[in-house]
Amino acid sequence: MSIAATPCPPYYAVIFTSLRNEEEPGYGAMADRMVELAAQQPGYLGHESAREGVGITVSYWENLDAILGWKVQTEHLFAQQAGRDRWYSAYQVRVCLVERAYGFFI
Amino acid sequence: MSIAATPCPPYYAVIFTSLRNEEEPGYGAMADRMVELAAQQPGYLGHESAREGVGITVSYWENLDAILGWKVQTEHLFAQQAGRDRWYSAYQVRVCLVERAYGFFI
Repeated sequence: MSIAATPCPPYYAVIFTSLRNEEEPGYGAMADRMVELAAQQPGYLGHESAREGVGITVSYWENLDAILGWKVQTEHLFAQQAGRDRWYSAYQVRVCLVERAYGFFI
Repeated sequence: MSIAATPCPPYYAVIFTSLRNEEEPGYGAMADRMVELAAQQPGYLGHESAREGVGITVSYWENLDAILGWKVQTEHLFAQQAGRDRWYSAYQVRVCLVERAYGFFI
C-alpha cells in the first residue's frame, strides 16, 4: 500500500472509516475482492488504506457518477449489507470534492 | 482512536497520507503534540488516524479559514519543515469539501 497517484484536482474522494467486529471469517477475502472490483470501475483513480484500531480507506474517483456506479455495483451491494450485519460495529462514509492537493515524493 | 463525530455536511476534510522514514527519534512526541494543538484550533471538528505501511490522518474543519489557520500555526510550521526534512519520505495533503456523509453506529 502506498500513496495514490491521483491527477490534479478537482476529483472526488470517499473516506470510509470503520470499526470492525471481532474476527469474522471471510473479512479479508471480501476486502481484497472489493479492492479488485473497485479498480475495475469506470472513473476509479486509486485508493489508500490503513487499519490501526480504526480503519480508514480513502478511494479516489473522477466524479460523482463514478462513485454512484461503484455504490450500486451488485457484488459491492452484498458486501455493504454484510458489512452492516456482521463485519463492522460502526462506519461512516464521507463523499468529498478534493479542491486542492500538494505534497512531495523523494 | 475512533470515528470522528462530525456535524452534518458541508464541512472540510484534510486527508494527510504519508510514508515514514525509518524510525526517527521524536516522531511520536511530535505527532501527539500536533494532535493536541490541532484540537485547540478554532474550527477543528475532529480527526481519525491509522498507520499500516502508509499513514492516513484525516482532520475535519468547519471551513477553509480554519484549515489555513492551522496550516500557519507557528509550532505546526516547524513540524511541517521537520516532516519534509526527516520524518517522511513522501506525503500528500488533500483539501476536500465534504458534501455528503452517512453511516451507522450501534
